[in-house]
Amino acid sequence: MIGMKSFYLVGYDIVSDKRRSKVASIMESFGYRVQYSLFECRLDRRDFGSMVKQLAPYVDKGQGDSIRIYRLCEACVSKAMYYGACPDPWERPEIII
Amino acid sequence: MIGMKSFYLVGYDIVSDKRRSKVASIMESFGYRVQYSLFECRLDRRDFGSMVKQLAPYVDKGQGDSIRIYRLCEACVSKAMYYGACPDPWERPEIII
Repeated sequence: MIGMKSFYLVGYDIVSDKRRSKVASIMESFGYRVQYSLFECRLDRRDFGSMVKQLAPYVDKGQGDSIRIYRLCEACVSKAMYYGACPDPWERPEIII
Repeated sequence: MIGMKSFYLVGYDIVSDKRRSKVASIMESFGYRVQYSLFECRLDRRDFGSMVKQLAPYVDKGQGDSIRIYRLCEACVSKAMYYGACPDPWERPEIII
């Protein structure tokens, strides 16, 4: 079921400005930027593999870079909450805090 | 079941340095900092409510601040992947990219 899409949340800390902007532009091609260094994506397995492959050269562990990837089931996606400036790409309702 | 703990992933974009450091220090008291502005927490309902209440005054929507909260089921928590500098607080294995 190579075509079936899953929801991924991808967050990164990238030390160098040059690598960080490269990571951001790669991520823009795979998902929605919901915060400065946090993206929400819906990807099938092939696209997920190609995303990780494209990111790898720009994540320098030795310099303190890190990337975190959370694969969320649809129940968890539907419970996501947000408050503030960034509209929700999947139109979940904003919480009031 | 007020005591039952759930896993929350909390990410924020806070424009002002002063508010951002206040949000970070509040979050340090509720969870683990896994990236610069991303925290993993295990909270019961009461602690979750108190976290949101403490954060609220420091999230200025009008200035472009935003906060995103994802509540993850244990299956999604176990699938989390990371690569890089930040050790995983729940000792999930690091992926190789």
